[in-house]
Amino acid sequence: MSAPLRLGIAGLGTVGIGVVKIIQKHADLVSVRCGRPVTITAVSARDRTRNRDADLSEFAWEADAVSLAQRDDVDLFVELIGGDAGVAKDSIEAALRAGKDVVTANKALLALHGQELAELAEAEGRVIRFEAAVAGGIPVIKALTESLAGNGINRVMGVMNGTCNYILTRMESAGLPYETVFEEARQLGYLEADPTLDVGGIDAGHKLAILAAIAFGTRVNFDAVEIEGIVRVSIDDIHRAEDMGYRIKLLGVAQMTARGLEQRMSPCLVPADSPLGQLNGGTNMVVIEGDSAGQIVLRGAGAGEGPTASAVMSDVIEIARGTRLPTFGRPAASLAAAQPARTAVPAAYYMRMELQDKPGALAKVAAVLGDSGISIDRMRQYGHASRDGVPVLVVTHKTTPEAIDHAIAALPRTGVLTGDPVELRIEEV
Amino acid sequence: MSAPLRLGIAGLGTVGIGVVKIIQKHADLVSVRCGRPVTITAVSARDRTRNRDADLSEFAWEADAVSLAQRDDVDLFVELIGGDAGVAKDSIEAALRAGKDVVTANKALLALHGQELAELAEAEGRVIRFEAAVAGGIPVIKALTESLAGNGINRVMGVMNGTCNYILTRMESAGLPYETVFEEARQLGYLEADPTLDVGGIDAGHKLAILAAIAFGTRVNFDAVEIEGIVRVSIDDIHRAEDMGYRIKLLGVAQMTARGLEQRMSPCLVPADSPLGQLNGGTNMVVIEGDSAGQIVLRGAGAGEGPTASAVMSDVIEIARGTRLPTFGRPAASLAAAQPARTAVPAAYYMRMELQDKPGALAKVAAVLGDSGISIDRMRQYGHASRDGVPVLVVTHKTTPEAIDHAIAALPRTGVLTGDPVELRIEEV
Repeated sequence: MSAPLRLGIAGLGTVGIGVVKIIQKHADLVSVRCGRPVTITAVSARDRTRNRDADLSEFAWEADAVSLAQRDDVDLFVELIGGDAGVAKDSIEAALRAGKDVVTANKALLALHGQELAELAEAEGRVIRFEAAVAGGIPVIKALTESLAGNGINRVMGVMNGTCNYILTRMESAGLPYETVFEEARQLGYLEADPTLDVGGIDAGHKLAILAAIAFGTRVNFDAVEIEGIVRVSIDDIHRAEDMGYRIKLLGVAQMTARGLEQRMSPCLVPADSPLGQLNGGTNMVVIEGDSAGQIVLRGAGAGEGPTASAVMSDVIEIARGTRLPTFGRPAASLAAAQPARTAVPAAYYMRMELQDKPGALAKVAAVLGDSGISIDRMRQYGHASRDGVPVLVVTHKTTPEAIDHAIAALPRTGVLTGDPVELRIEEV
Repeated sequence: MSAPLRLGIAGLGTVGIGVVKIIQKHADLVSVRCGRPVTITAVSARDRTRNRDADLSEFAWEADAVSLAQRDDVDLFVELIGGDAGVAKDSIEAALRAGKDVVTANKALLALHGQELAELAEAEGRVIRFEAAVAGGIPVIKALTESLAGNGINRVMGVMNGTCNYILTRMESAGLPYETVFEEARQLGYLEADPTLDVGGIDAGHKLAILAAIAFGTRVNFDAVEIEGIVRVSIDDIHRAEDMGYRIKLLGVAQMTARGLEQRMSPCLVPADSPLGQLNGGTNMVVIEGDSAGQIVLRGAGAGEGPTASAVMSDVIEIARGTRLPTFGRPAASLAAAQPARTAVPAAYYMRMELQDKPGALAKVAAVLGDSGISIDRMRQYGHASRDGVPVLVVTHKTTPEAIDHAIAALPRTGVLTGDPVELRIEEV
């Protein structure tokens, strides 16, 4: 049996305490699986006096995470503080410079400073692992970095924010508008302190940027992710999409095209009977398409104490076993600065509009679509149910985002709409 | 850049050629991901003259896999011959003794001789990896061995034979009897030379035994897997199960109980709207339940050139990167000889029987169920549709397999059945 791997854990929120509990509960199991014990030397958090759901009495306490990261009796620094800068970044850098490996769950930090940290880790001969940063307990970082390493990756997709998926599925099942369910979610404690991180798609966008970097061997580029949150998803669209056989998901898609790397996080329609369409509540799903493996679907809890701590432990055990991988699965210097590309891959689109109830209105709409080069797969006009006009739904054949933009700009000029038209991409899954 | 990892590939069927193609197509990608080139030195197969879909001219040819395994210019021996003994086993042993690491896709060999091979590998300081042995391109070995290594595993389940799932879903969608679809599958080339390996549940049983060993830290024990194939699944049961909201799958389940390790591979009902229930055609799915991670679902192609070769490459790249794991995720000596246990975990059951159309028949059936300690969740009696009698379906509340066995033995003695009763377990998923 080799020497123990000694952990310093910074951040004792839900996930940090979850990690402490696993190490205490499964010490023997982890030891036999690693060929060496995994122990905790010291911990740190903002408030020492807070009552926590674990016995921390055997660990040294550091008031400062940077000091924790530099302790001589710490081999591996576990950063669970969070935040894209400040003490999280400082302490990780201090750990690497002090010759410690790092495990983190910090998606924002990796999405914004991943390249810089990967370069520092390599320069210091240290590793950074971050399975918990994306999709909680789902082993998606390992799947991309290792299991599919022999594949060219065609596309990575995923529902990676459980709060948004909860809100969308709850709107559908309870027939409630966005604002009501948002307020429910807030009261249930599902939302971040700044809820736009969740419902604005930013948290999920961070995760997508990390996956894209590994999948395509590119420098992580969060700024290039086209992000739209779920705020404009109406209960009307959820119901109309359902009528047409779809569900609306906040879906992240990254794919490399001849024009560059497309990364988008936006509300999309997916077939109701697809694995993504069947995903309810807070569960996450990542779909990876490899040129040899085909489509691999991974599903599980995207957040929560146990699942996230399980992912952190996966990294801890990997390092305890002596596995040493480059941060994004290849040397940092080999990561290319990909050309960011606006979404151009054609897709079918869903369009909803309200028409004035008068002769020729539908003809004008159809003419605009035709002029935009959009051909119609299915169109459905509803009875005069709305106070605003006659609801009309269109599912287009595959078309370009440019054609859709053209149509959306031109439709109001027909003078037959009673409001703004809505469009949502139907992602092929 | 380190020295290349030099492969010797034994077996040039679909998977072997798939591996050759990936290494030829993605040489640069693999090299940058591994930090060293991966090359093929030599290959072997039974028939050198066969026309193969890859250029093998740059590789040395060995007529004998054992000689290939012992070549000085081979670092890693890739066994893709198959079979639970003979040259596959001989060549792997020769490779390990000659100081080579081994990658194999051979589920039968690992299910029957896994412990012995793991011990040999450890004694020689070598590793054996086998991601391709279970569920094709789905990274389930890595998920269990690494991603969930910090979890106590509660249960592992899976649909792991694509041919059986194809047959069952085709019976359902086309309304065809087993024999007809079996013959279709044979003509499509979906069946092994000995089809009982597929439809008899043996191939899937091999896979389950391997997963159980990793999940529970036990010596692989294929002989203890309770196996029943899909031969007795009738189109009637498929339709009746559908009526009740279920689908029938050849489902493997392994779980550790106080009585010992339960391993079974058998046709089961699962809810039609569960991920397992929605699995169609040749796709595989593995569900792992960890005490921290919760339920992780992995889905993908379970067979075929690309997916299986992708899994082989995952192991090759792992070894090229210098990762060295014990065969079943912990030292071979630490693997416990688990007490095998017959299925005792309670479950709901589906029962179908044909009753004589006379007064009191249903009462007698209900009495037998009551006497057996079985309480009824739902019962449905159909109109006189069958030539054999009145079909009656029962879905029980959770009960023990013993109670079901008791009822199945007692029911014919009522004298009101026109044939044998059928029972199928409803696995909780």
